[in-house]
Amino acid sequence: MGGTHVLDGHPRAESIRIRERLTGHVETKVLALAGLIAHGRGEAFDYILGEETTLSAMGAITAAAATMLLAERPVLSVNGNVAALCAKDLVELARATGARLEVNLFHRLPGREEAIERVLREAGAEEVLGVGKAASARIEEVYSDRRRVDPRGILVADVVFVPLEDGDRTQGLVRMGKRVITVDLNPLSRTAQAATITIVDNIVRAMPLLVSEARRLRASERDELERAVSAYDNRAALSAAIRTMESRLHELADRGAPVRLR
Amino acid sequence: MGGTHVLDGHPRAESIRIRERLTGHVETKVLALAGLIAHGRGEAFDYILGEETTLSAMGAITAAAATMLLAERPVLSVNGNVAALCAKDLVELARATGARLEVNLFHRLPGREEAIERVLREAGAEEVLGVGKAASARIEEVYSDRRRVDPRGILVADVVFVPLEDGDRTQGLVRMGKRVITVDLNPLSRTAQAATITIVDNIVRAMPLLVSEARRLRASERDELERAVSAYDNRAALSAAIRTMESRLHELADRGAPVRLR
Repeated sequence: MGGTHVLDGHPRAESIRIRERLTGHVETKVLALAGLIAHGRGEAFDYILGEETTLSAMGAITAAAATMLLAERPVLSVNGNVAALCAKDLVELARATGARLEVNLFHRLPGREEAIERVLREAGAEEVLGVGKAASARIEEVYSDRRRVDPRGILVADVVFVPLEDGDRTQGLVRMGKRVITVDLNPLSRTAQAATITIVDNIVRAMPLLVSEARRLRASERDELERAVSAYDNRAALSAAIRTMESRLHELADRGAPVRLR
Repeated sequence: MGGTHVLDGHPRAESIRIRERLTGHVETKVLALAGLIAHGRGEAFDYILGEETTLSAMGAITAAAATMLLAERPVLSVNGNVAALCAKDLVELARATGARLEVNLFHRLPGREEAIERVLREAGAEEVLGVGKAASARIEEVYSDRRRVDPRGILVADVVFVPLEDGDRTQGLVRMGKRVITVDLNPLSRTAQAATITIVDNIVRAMPLLVSEARRLRASERDELERAVSAYDNRAALSAAIRTMESRLHELADRGAPVRLR
């Protein structure tokens, strides 16, 4: 897991290092193979987006931090990709917002939730919900193994953070009346469209920003946080992300046309 | 490998079936884990492209078939993803154009080339170059294990078909003076930019079309084929692909904006 085969000078070094971290986590069982394909989709959207946090994504991050701080029972839902990419940030976000961590998987293969719990505990988590028999409640709004939730966590949460999530799940949680925050590089996905707040950004860039926003806003008054939330418009943020991708493609096409590589 | 968990009615059934075929081939050693991430990137670009063969991709397919038919020593280079997705089409294309099949991998892990050879032979291939000691030649223009080639195949080829390929490899082969044909869903990739002919399409759609074009053109006169090749402009085809993606994003943004999922 530790070693890398990429030189720092390589133009895609960071991206390749992240890939190696993910493929290494297939062996630890944290990641399902389908998680690698999903990561590839994210890579392509990030490339088109310009591989940086946009101004409108930053607005979503601020609204998300405020929403978590206002919540009575916020929960951070953790799947394999998220655990592999940013376990430390998740633990820090849980601390900064008072949220609980819950493992919630599409494929509950033997040993997988325990492997994810291990990664979270190694990153400093003191409590991890949703593992094994703890996921004893069922939510009828969601299909697949994801319907199994912890009665202390997602079941009773008012705000759920479900980064890198699928559409069914997000829609199910919204139907249950929960406020749902997601991170998704595809602004056109059902998750992006259904969530209350969609952060269209690479989770590796967004998580540290989310943690620092939560810390910054922690001292704020309640009505200040409420204003930050009500000023945010998810539909507008999604449109801004799509427009950024459109104009980036335009720019890349202009730049790409005269390229001579021979 | 055989079973599928997807109902035909699912809007993404075909896409999910292809994913299952690929993840199944990790176990058979045909696919490297990095190949799953690459597939995800392709999925995202295909989604933006509209998941259908464009008119300009069809032009590239015709030029590619004519180029292979005109070649003296055409070779089809096969990696894990290509073998997993379209072994039968490769065998038919080799037959239709008189090309030889050669396994050429970035990661030559023990047993992998043999696994790919097996898939090709099961699909009807009578000869598979580049496996084991047969890859005895080295081309200095290419780094990684891919520099190891078969002296009967890629080394002496005038036309090389390298679908789903990385940039270094494509550029190396072009520098050697070979005509290089590729299939790549990202029109901005180094491979797409460096190749002589770039088919910007999903390989699962492009391969059967390439086979039928090769069969259709097989009866043509040499000068007719030459006209088809010289009429083709790869730079224009790449621009057309980028413009298609741009306008698709525009259309999706328009259609996406009023979506109500709750």
